[in-house]
Amino acid sequence: MTGDLLIRSVRPWPNAPGAPVVDVLCEGGRVAAFGRDLDPPPDVPVADGRGGVLLPAFTDAHAHLDSTRLGLPFRPHSAGEGLAELIDNDRRNWRSAGASVAERATHTLGRTIAFGATHVRSHAQVDVDSGLEKLEGVLAARQEHAGRAHVEVVAFPQCGILREKGTADLLDAALRAGADLVGGLDPAGYDRDPVRHLDVVFGLAEKHQRGVDVHLHDAGTLGAFQVELICERVAALGMWGQVTISHAFALSTVDDQRQGELVERLAEHDIAVTTVAPGVRDPLPLRRLRWAGVRVGLGQDGIRDYWSPYGDGDMLDRAWQLAYRNGFRRDELVEMCVDIATRGGAAVMGRVLGLTEGAPADLVVVPGDTVTGAVMDRAPRTLVVHEGRVVACDGQVV
Amino acid sequence: MTGDLLIRSVRPWPNAPGAPVVDVLCEGGRVAAFGRDLDPPPDVPVADGRGGVLLPAFTDAHAHLDSTRLGLPFRPHSAGEGLAELIDNDRRNWRSAGASVAERATHTLGRTIAFGATHVRSHAQVDVDSGLEKLEGVLAARQEHAGRAHVEVVAFPQCGILREKGTADLLDAALRAGADLVGGLDPAGYDRDPVRHLDVVFGLAEKHQRGVDVHLHDAGTLGAFQVELICERVAALGMWGQVTISHAFALSTVDDQRQGELVERLAEHDIAVTTVAPGVRDPLPLRRLRWAGVRVGLGQDGIRDYWSPYGDGDMLDRAWQLAYRNGFRRDELVEMCVDIATRGGAAVMGRVLGLTEGAPADLVVVPGDTVTGAVMDRAPRTLVVHEGRVVACDGQVV
Repeated sequence: MTGDLLIRSVRPWPNAPGAPVVDVLCEGGRVAAFGRDLDPPPDVPVADGRGGVLLPAFTDAHAHLDSTRLGLPFRPHSAGEGLAELIDNDRRNWRSAGASVAERATHTLGRTIAFGATHVRSHAQVDVDSGLEKLEGVLAARQEHAGRAHVEVVAFPQCGILREKGTADLLDAALRAGADLVGGLDPAGYDRDPVRHLDVVFGLAEKHQRGVDVHLHDAGTLGAFQVELICERVAALGMWGQVTISHAFALSTVDDQRQGELVERLAEHDIAVTTVAPGVRDPLPLRRLRWAGVRVGLGQDGIRDYWSPYGDGDMLDRAWQLAYRNGFRRDELVEMCVDIATRGGAAVMGRVLGLTEGAPADLVVVPGDTVTGAVMDRAPRTLVVHEGRVVACDGQVV
Repeated sequence: MTGDLLIRSVRPWPNAPGAPVVDVLCEGGRVAAFGRDLDPPPDVPVADGRGGVLLPAFTDAHAHLDSTRLGLPFRPHSAGEGLAELIDNDRRNWRSAGASVAERATHTLGRTIAFGATHVRSHAQVDVDSGLEKLEGVLAARQEHAGRAHVEVVAFPQCGILREKGTADLLDAALRAGADLVGGLDPAGYDRDPVRHLDVVFGLAEKHQRGVDVHLHDAGTLGAFQVELICERVAALGMWGQVTISHAFALSTVDDQRQGELVERLAEHDIAVTTVAPGVRDPLPLRRLRWAGVRVGLGQDGIRDYWSPYGDGDMLDRAWQLAYRNGFRRDELVEMCVDIATRGGAAVMGRVLGLTEGAPADLVVVPGDTVTGAVMDRAPRTLVVHEGRVVACDGQVV
């Protein structure tokens, strides 16, 4: 599945040596060499980067491909306020979304790849209403784009685990059916019993030897308490490096000292966090998290669905959003957001990306003369490369 | 300067009658009729809206065209923190920006028009370092795009009025040289003497019979105090409807009761406010302001300059940003942001836009099937019309 490729005329960022515009040779799906006017080995395809900025490919570390309606006629937002109403609204409408889950997920995954992401972690709702249908749709989309992106799927109890009888068994079935991780959702605030909720989640993770990715919107001290509960289970089960907390609003809603303690706990347990750069909630303490060594990823969340009209598959736009929302003007801070949107998210998925020789040839070329300039322009991607093969060109999957 | 035009196949928003896809006839620079399959009068040009959403044209109610470097090679952000350092950094660099003020302002104004704005209020820095050179550059850009957009220019004391001897005289000269309004900047927080600063500003406004647009970043009770000082001067001089407070962070940094009082004061004095949808500062209370009858406009602020790398000329993207930053999901709230970005800003400039018969034919056609869908897609504009003439097409000025 891996390929050889010569990419002409790119400006690598951040750690490639040499002149500003170089060629990049990929061999066996890995970066093999940077240099000026490299000769392509026989039969190796050549792609023109047209002088654009070369980045590691983007990672969408938190998507909901099962609910997307991107590309279909727009429907007005029909949900009322609050999580319960959002859940009920989706349940009322998803079967008449205009296309099957597989078709919708396939379309949006394709757009996400065309915008330069070759690593995607998608949640797939598992509940007594939809059973495994949404999971199967996302797995079908992954299959459709096999060879274009590495996709992880989380069996996600969007409607809670304890509120509806049978959900735990469905999560168990989802892990047998191909889900890579088991999810959770506001164990206290929504499911009303944090210990029992997390015991189900971590029990399934242990049984199937899979990772965990918990949605934690619960804020303040209640959220912080649940971060501690998760840490305790990571330590008890030896799951360092295998657990992610998504959203993690607790981190930005406790006082400075408590925030520091939580960040330390996350680092000690090698628990990753992901953010979607929300418009209203305070941003995560990105620098503090990264300084402590916590893996931080960026995601799109829902992508034009019954939950929200936002999202379009573009992780570069989301990196812009992260920078804007943090008020970052200096290039090194904007570039930190790009790092979170590329290598950071990949690290959440346990993958190492980069622009060094030997790194996976998962790359994106963005028009622009500097990384920050490219972020501000957000132009269609010139090239997207996965495992040494061109998978998208000028904004379209090939 | 006004024209006749038949626009085929658009979906008007929000108050046009009839079928979802209609034609629009413009006569003498005004909207004359909506209807299906209208016959064009002899010699009237026809433009194809291709089924897109028809909106009033956008208004950039707060731009800094004098400082923009859009379209030039990207330069890393070189300023330190704080307003004084931003001011000094610009002063160190603006003369070597890579093109003249007129060239840079002309380019960015062209991009702003191509993205659908036909009304622009730009500040032009007036200070002892640059004299009237920046003002003259923006006036030249206005002249270059005469017939494509209505542009107001504010003589803006970016470096304060009282800190450097001679600034007040330069503002006086700027108003004689063609500036439409006189500006101000944080009369207390930056210039250190709110009464004397505002007395200079309003004195010049009275002398030249011009409007006022004051940058007020000062927050909390200090900002609120200055809002009151401005109200007092509006009442004393009878300047209802001729004053704008830009940014107005005070409104979102006082308690709820005080906020209500300030909104009432603004409404009583018909003082407009503009926002740039900042990423970090709390949003203005948009609904409360509009409910009270306060005119609210949206602007781009600096557009890729020595102050900030953000901004690209696209007011539809800025409307998206306003909606995202407020957490708006419901269509009527996203549409409110579009209304602020179109008719709201025009009202700040004392102009009435709309989609009713008799309204000025300042229009934009955006690909999409609904307004909110068009905001989320942010596709290149199909058509931009100013005073009944097509001024941009498929994202390019014509």
